[in-house]
Amino acid sequence: MTPNYLKKQRPVSDSFVIMTELVLPNDTNTLNNLMGGRMMHLMDIAAAIAAQKHSNRIVVTASVDNVSFRDPIRLGNVVTLQAQVTRSFSSSMEVHIDVWAEDIPSGTKVKTNEAFFTFVAVDQSGRPIDVPEAVPETADEIALYDGALRRRQLRLVLAGRMKPIDATELRALFEIA
Amino acid sequence: MTPNYLKKQRPVSDSFVIMTELVLPNDTNTLNNLMGGRMMHLMDIAAAIAAQKHSNRIVVTASVDNVSFRDPIRLGNVVTLQAQVTRSFSSSMEVHIDVWAEDIPSGTKVKTNEAFFTFVAVDQSGRPIDVPEAVPETADEIALYDGALRRRQLRLVLAGRMKPIDATELRALFEIA
Amino acid sequence: MTPNYLKKQRPVSDSFVIMTELVLPNDTNTLNNLMGGRMMHLMDIAAAIAAQKHSNRIVVTASVDNVSFRDPIRLGNVVTLQAQVTRSFSSSMEVHIDVWAEDIPSGTKVKTNEAFFTFVAVDQSGRPIDVPEAVPETADEIALYDGALRRRQLRLVLAGRMKPIDATELRALFEIA
Amino acid sequence: MTPNYLKKQRPVSDSFVIMTELVLPNDTNTLNNLMGGRMMHLMDIAAAIAAQKHSNRIVVTASVDNVSFRDPIRLGNVVTLQAQVTRSFSSSMEVHIDVWAEDIPSGTKVKTNEAFFTFVAVDQSGRPIDVPEAVPETADEIALYDGALRRRQLRLVLAGRMKPIDATELRALFEIA
Amino acid sequence: MTPNYLKKQRPVSDSFVIMTELVLPNDTNTLNNLMGGRMMHLMDIAAAIAAQKHSNRIVVTASVDNVSFRDPIRLGNVVTLQAQVTRSFSSSMEVHIDVWAEDIPSGTKVKTNEAFFTFVAVDQSGRPIDVPEAVPETADEIALYDGALRRRQLRLVLAGRMKPIDATELRALFEIA
Amino acid sequence: MTPNYLKKQRPVSDSFVIMTELVLPNDTNTLNNLMGGRMMHLMDIAAAIAAQKHSNRIVVTASVDNVSFRDPIRLGNVVTLQAQVTRSFSSSMEVHIDVWAEDIPSGTKVKTNEAFFTFVAVDQSGRPIDVPEAVPETADEIALYDGALRRRQLRLVLAGRMKPIDATELRALFEIA
Repeated sequence: MTPNYLKKQRPVSDSFVIMTELVLPNDTNTLNNLMGGRMMHLMDIAAAIAAQKHSNRIVVTASVDNVSFRDPIRLGNVVTLQAQVTRSFSSSMEVHIDVWAEDIPSGTKVKTNEAFFTFVAVDQSGRPIDVPEAVPETADEIALYDGALRRRQLRLVLAGRMKPIDATELRALFEIA
Repeated sequence: MTPNYLKKQRPVSDSFVIMTELVLPNDTNTLNNLMGGRMMHLMDIAAAIAAQKHSNRIVVTASVDNVSFRDPIRLGNVVTLQAQVTRSFSSSMEVHIDVWAEDIPSGTKVKTNEAFFTFVAVDQSGRPIDVPEAVPETADEIALYDGALRRRQLRLVLAGRMKPIDATELRALFEIA
Repeated sequence: MTPNYLKKQRPVSDSFVIMTELVLPNDTNTLNNLMGGRMMHLMDIAAAIAAQKHSNRIVVTASVDNVSFRDPIRLGNVVTLQAQVTRSFSSSMEVHIDVWAEDIPSGTKVKTNEAFFTFVAVDQSGRPIDVPEAVPETADEIALYDGALRRRQLRLVLAGRMKPIDATELRALFEIA
Repeated sequence: MTPNYLKKQRPVSDSFVIMTELVLPNDTNTLNNLMGGRMMHLMDIAAAIAAQKHSNRIVVTASVDNVSFRDPIRLGNVVTLQAQVTRSFSSSMEVHIDVWAEDIPSGTKVKTNEAFFTFVAVDQSGRPIDVPEAVPETADEIALYDGALRRRQLRLVLAGRMKPIDATELRALFEIA
Repeated sequence: MTPNYLKKQRPVSDSFVIMTELVLPNDTNTLNNLMGGRMMHLMDIAAAIAAQKHSNRIVVTASVDNVSFRDPIRLGNVVTLQAQVTRSFSSSMEVHIDVWAEDIPSGTKVKTNEAFFTFVAVDQSGRPIDVPEAVPETADEIALYDGALRRRQLRLVLAGRMKPIDATELRALFEIA
Repeated sequence: MTPNYLKKQRPVSDSFVIMTELVLPNDTNTLNNLMGGRMMHLMDIAAAIAAQKHSNRIVVTASVDNVSFRDPIRLGNVVTLQAQVTRSFSSSMEVHIDVWAEDIPSGTKVKTNEAFFTFVAVDQSGRPIDVPEAVPETADEIALYDGALRRRQLRLVLAGRMKPIDATELRALFEIA
């Protein structure tokens, strides 16, 4: 059988990860709310595991897209993160992460965050190495796959590695005609 | 609608929890293997969340059944824990936990542990409070539900709170006739 | 004397913060490099302190702009973060963060990251509360102040809270005429 | 003089360990009580040190017997653990642990837990290696030594590695005649 | 019976504490040796527990005397700290701490540090409150008790709260006649 | 250009370090004040980085001079540490540390501690290695440089490595004529 790391293509659902965490005192600020930095730390671990599962490689964080923090998450809440690769580009993989916070005694559960992290697969010396093509299957997976190109252009423009004029997918968003 | 904590009965699958953790340096011994105590710490958190989900209450650990550690889990491995309530007794709930360790670069994943933890639901003053009856639905859930009585007798005997002679379910295991 | 939290205007340099951290084993992945999530955790703490200093209030993270990770940071390296408020909008403050990694035995120091975090000042009940106007003084501070409006529009568009057509500052980037 | 790891026999008291810990915020649940998983983590460290002292080897946790948690242990309490090897079997050692919690300002100290952990001594490659015979000397040590065989049979039966019918020591507990 | 905190006098041995810790990766520098700051953290916890036991009060660290670090302590070593009150002065207590490091596989154990910490007993508002007189009983305890006055004068001189000319006990050390 | 580690002399200001930390729940005692041991842990890290910067070497803590703790530092406070080498002696460096605690919402900032730590520069095998001479430039730096000899004599006397009679600098403090 072909080992996973030799496969040319893998369904994105192979990379699906669920992570569950309890908010502990040291994760919180003086209002007893989870600090944003700790949340990003959790997102990075969940997303890195998804990227590892897609590539069967060691992965390093390449970039984090804009993340918004809407609702406070309280001490004692249960945080659930779901991460899955959306698309791959040579050695890099975009991962989508959804986060929910649950206050179990009161029975409330709200979606608090959504984010995109990008990882690069590397060999033991830290050099980038190609990963399998990521194949979307469901309608949601296809929508995330299609948007990945536009988000990638935004990342490159923001990092100064692409001229806005060349970001054709992105420009379409801002232009009328 | 009846709030969950007023429900008399809930399917055991309502309490299902998946937890995923990356093994970090401070979790390991000098052989770079995950320490048993850290594993039990993770099991306790996963199982407590399952018991919280069943009861919509704060829960405290009441006991841990015999746990065996077979295979070493390495630094950098991904540990996946799945926890689900098996049965409830007044204010206490037994939770079953399965653990897998995955070495993603080599593509190996092995089941490393299986355990039963028992929790008691408490109110804000720490007093025990009744929880919904746990209803098994699948064949596996029913088998775990049925075994819960025997495991409970073993716990009571080991804690010196039941005489071996009264542990009818347990005695059946050791007697010929 | 007017206490700081009653001041209508404050120079952005009042909020300047330097944070220095040693990269410890638990901060690193299996290649012994600092994990991206841990870096974002440090950035969030440094930036939150800058926002606290500007507003003399408790602050909560509202959003993180795109962050790129270029160079690996090694176990034992010294990480230096410098954070300063760039501009305020009612109760929110944008903070700019620069990060350097230094390998002291080899005498190398490289700039590894640059990021923008946004915080909201809140009262003891967690309700947003106005902060002083942030006044830039140097040429660099003025450039960061001027760009803040464009970055804010991008944040609002990405969060689905502004239509691209209304993001006038942002559109200027992508349009020719 | 014979180095310890070449000795054929050692008194069990050579392995005696006292560990004292202060309960910190991150060790506690939302009722400010020490979490059961953190307690098991401490027990595992204390017991592992006792097994190391008996064998002068690296040791790995092989199993944990049933542990009950009776009394809540509060934030700020002082936890004292005492661990000592009870008996050895080829490369494995059973360790007995007693735990007390002390609320110093109120002057109360209660015994909260008692447990048995089993460890295996390993060489640098992780392969099991024989340990000295453990020699009990006091009446308490002899009682623990004598019970070790019965507990070992229970562990083997629970792990599915011994048939209940063959667990002669254990059967004696449950049979009338 | 008189509760401990109403006692006028207590033997110093009532405060005796043994603490045992395993050196974990995050406690070490890039040479895999325990960092001095982590050692002082452990000393402070052990000594604070001894001061709590003498006074049955909450205690806060008032000062640390000169501490020398002679021998490197390695990752995986077992550190044993023994702390005991030497003498009390109104609301303050001097605590003596001895530290040993043990490399169990090689069977070596060396005394690595000795230190004196001073604590003040406080009430719930943080105000100093008198503690029982500390009574030494053995020859070693008496020697430590007698030296406490000289060390206290050195502390006061170094803190600028006593003139060297008034430090009669201390002067005796440095003068010939 | 001469690499730093080959330089014979360096200004002390080359080693200047600022460290900023937020007081988190696990850093505090039951009065919600920063524990002394955690403060010393932070001081040791800041001072070690200063000594690394002066020597471009791995450094190990050799000793800590008397440290006093005057004012309580609260949960949520911002702690700022400033460290700088004062003088070097062959392979050892004395580092001076100033600490401030800031309660940002109330706008108060107080100096809470001042300390001297000594470090030894070592090579990869842990053997002491000479460091550049430390050159003071400002009046404050010169005063600290001049006092270093007296503090060094006190350290040697306290460590039993110098007879009080030979501590000429120190004796001058305690003698009248």
